[in-house]
Amino acid sequence: MPPFSPPPADHTLTSLRGLRAAGVAAGIKASGNPDLALLVADQPIPCAGVFTRNRLAAAPVLLCRDHLARSGGLVRALVVNSGNANACTGPTGDAHALRMAQRVAAALACPVEQVLVASTGVIGVQLPIDLVLSGIDRALAALSSDPGAGRDFLRAIQTTDAFPKEASAPLPSARHGLVAGVCKGAGMIQPNMATMLAFLATDLPLSSAQLQGWLPGIVDQSFNAVHVDSHASTNDTCLLLATGSAAPAPEAEALATLNGVARRLAWLIARDGEGATKVTTIEVRGARDDQAARAIAARVAQSALVRTALFGNDPNWGRFTSQVGNCDEVLDITALRCTLQQIPVFARGEPLPFDRAAASAAMKNEDVHLLLELSDGPGTASLMTSDLGYRYVEVNAEYTT
Amino acid sequence: MPPFSPPPADHTLTSLRGLRAAGVAAGIKASGNPDLALLVADQPIPCAGVFTRNRLAAAPVLLCRDHLARSGGLVRALVVNSGNANACTGPTGDAHALRMAQRVAAALACPVEQVLVASTGVIGVQLPIDLVLSGIDRALAALSSDPGAGRDFLRAIQTTDAFPKEASAPLPSARHGLVAGVCKGAGMIQPNMATMLAFLATDLPLSSAQLQGWLPGIVDQSFNAVHVDSHASTNDTCLLLATGSAAPAPEAEALATLNGVARRLAWLIARDGEGATKVTTIEVRGARDDQAARAIAARVAQSALVRTALFGNDPNWGRFTSQVGNCDEVLDITALRCTLQQIPVFARGEPLPFDRAAASAAMKNEDVHLLLELSDGPGTASLMTSDLGYRYVEVNAEYTT
Repeated sequence: MPPFSPPPADHTLTSLRGLRAAGVAAGIKASGNPDLALLVADQPIPCAGVFTRNRLAAAPVLLCRDHLARSGGLVRALVVNSGNANACTGPTGDAHALRMAQRVAAALACPVEQVLVASTGVIGVQLPIDLVLSGIDRALAALSSDPGAGRDFLRAIQTTDAFPKEASAPLPSARHGLVAGVCKGAGMIQPNMATMLAFLATDLPLSSAQLQGWLPGIVDQSFNAVHVDSHASTNDTCLLLATGSAAPAPEAEALATLNGVARRLAWLIARDGEGATKVTTIEVRGARDDQAARAIAARVAQSALVRTALFGNDPNWGRFTSQVGNCDEVLDITALRCTLQQIPVFARGEPLPFDRAAASAAMKNEDVHLLLELSDGPGTASLMTSDLGYRYVEVNAEYTT
Repeated sequence: MPPFSPPPADHTLTSLRGLRAAGVAAGIKASGNPDLALLVADQPIPCAGVFTRNRLAAAPVLLCRDHLARSGGLVRALVVNSGNANACTGPTGDAHALRMAQRVAAALACPVEQVLVASTGVIGVQLPIDLVLSGIDRALAALSSDPGAGRDFLRAIQTTDAFPKEASAPLPSARHGLVAGVCKGAGMIQPNMATMLAFLATDLPLSSAQLQGWLPGIVDQSFNAVHVDSHASTNDTCLLLATGSAAPAPEAEALATLNGVARRLAWLIARDGEGATKVTTIEVRGARDDQAARAIAARVAQSALVRTALFGNDPNWGRFTSQVGNCDEVLDITALRCTLQQIPVFARGEPLPFDRAAASAAMKNEDVHLLLELSDGPGTASLMTSDLGYRYVEVNAEYTT
């Protein structure tokens, strides 16, 4: 099977008027690949952020929370490094994150709290800060509004990603309204330490308060529907910026477009999955409530036995149903029905006859759909998960040493 | 690396006076390997059981619970099949489990409730009951008290096990007191569907009530310390029998010997781990209480990133500590200290200098010790986990198709 390669998005971050970007190789990665990315707005623009809930939140996450609070949600620039997460690095790490912001702020002559920082890579190793700072200088010199500059930015934020992850969509009716986003990360069983960085921007005129009101919900239906709740890495960061150059659009339309772009980015994370061969959408219907549905879907998505069966195109549905049996949230297990790729395989406590070879063939697909139906109530959930194959072990067993 | 092969135990089930066993190939497994095991006591003997908490408990589990209740915890025989779990099989499956018990009861002329049944293998497929019943007939004919018969029993209960799992120990001071046990199963990330069957027996004169009083605690410190709590398969079964031919022993001694044999069997399950290369004991100290300690250890043990790092002998401790950061049970994360194979790697929020090559070399061991220390309280826990390698994917992606 040839490696998966998504078609490029129509637009990237620099397609939005007033944004410039750059990506350079600062020397943080031993490979010499790009590892320092910079995004700069011509003026301070509204920005909202959603961050990891991990108690060991990395230095750049602490900095972002602080800076967004102090700046009132106005941002001039975002500097990102890959190859080192600057996590579990103590006061030295905090100082390094601040120096990154200060270097950018000095060059742009803006308050330091208008600069945000994100990092991803190995945990517990101090940043080579001199390399980082001279990388920032080179990125500042390379800033451009060309489409290529947006892609340079994207390349420089990646770590184990197998392909670039970008998405964009115009608003259906607004004159110039556009949403573009990039992200990095490879969704996994428990993506708790697989940093997810996502940066979305729109040219719609939206306030910081409005962005911050929307972003948690957008993340919940996209990135948090891959990265199962409460399994946050030390560095997870999602930022949403609004440049304001376009005409206002109806709220519902703006939100739907943002949701669509975010969900596509999340799909790309699940599709990568460090060796994944497909994206499986686990849909739960008829749970007690939405929270119960989500917990059940997450339990199934987290099972290594479920995920290896998906990798092997094995319609071994007992692994799916018996995992539902482990969920405290289920009220009446006897009502459970299981449908795999539109093929009913289990109902009323008994297997249904089906063609295993045909079911296996149906699983050889970019998108697999697993439907688990209960009769407990109106709760629904839809989570995306990647399968677990040999390549996952290879990537994760040989990452730092 | 040559495949792991544990030394045989000194004794097996048939070493206990009054027990006979057999193992035959009934044709349930396509491979033709042994798949039908029978254990028979000369007279009804006390027995206790601990079973899966999965809501989709398999037919044989439901039968065992019912029979133990109705027989007052007295058992004449145990029949086990591998190759098919008889789970998610509805009323037909229930009838099949009962017919297995009836066949044995008829041959032994005992009440059907004195026969227990266990099954392990693929879920959601009806048992080939005619093959099973004629297999039972052949097993009845083959019953023997030879040591080899105990090993035949063990061979016939295995599925994906890479090696036989047996353990035994004499009581330190009792004249003839002995504990012997066998089990099957390969501990995994979420061993929720990796059926664990364990059968322990002693010749001590212990009542059903005493056995049932002890068994949950024994299981908690052994099999439940591998099979992380609440991740039970549809078929998990642990039985403890007492033949009563030996002289009484002090309670503390009897319990310590039972615990030791159970813990050794659990270690063997973790060591197998469908491709595992070692057993990692995750020890948490200083948690709020024991329950919190166990939850934290389980969270670390379940992470695929942690387990692939263990497979790769990668001292990438950020994966361990950041997973602790995801635990709601932690009160003060700043106190966290992490020690890997006696090498301190993290304390007070910062990495400690250590020799990575030496640490990696120290991880190339049958037993790896990961110590996570907090300052929240007196809580401690010790869980055993297997690492996650290529072979795990191979075994689990290609199991049924």
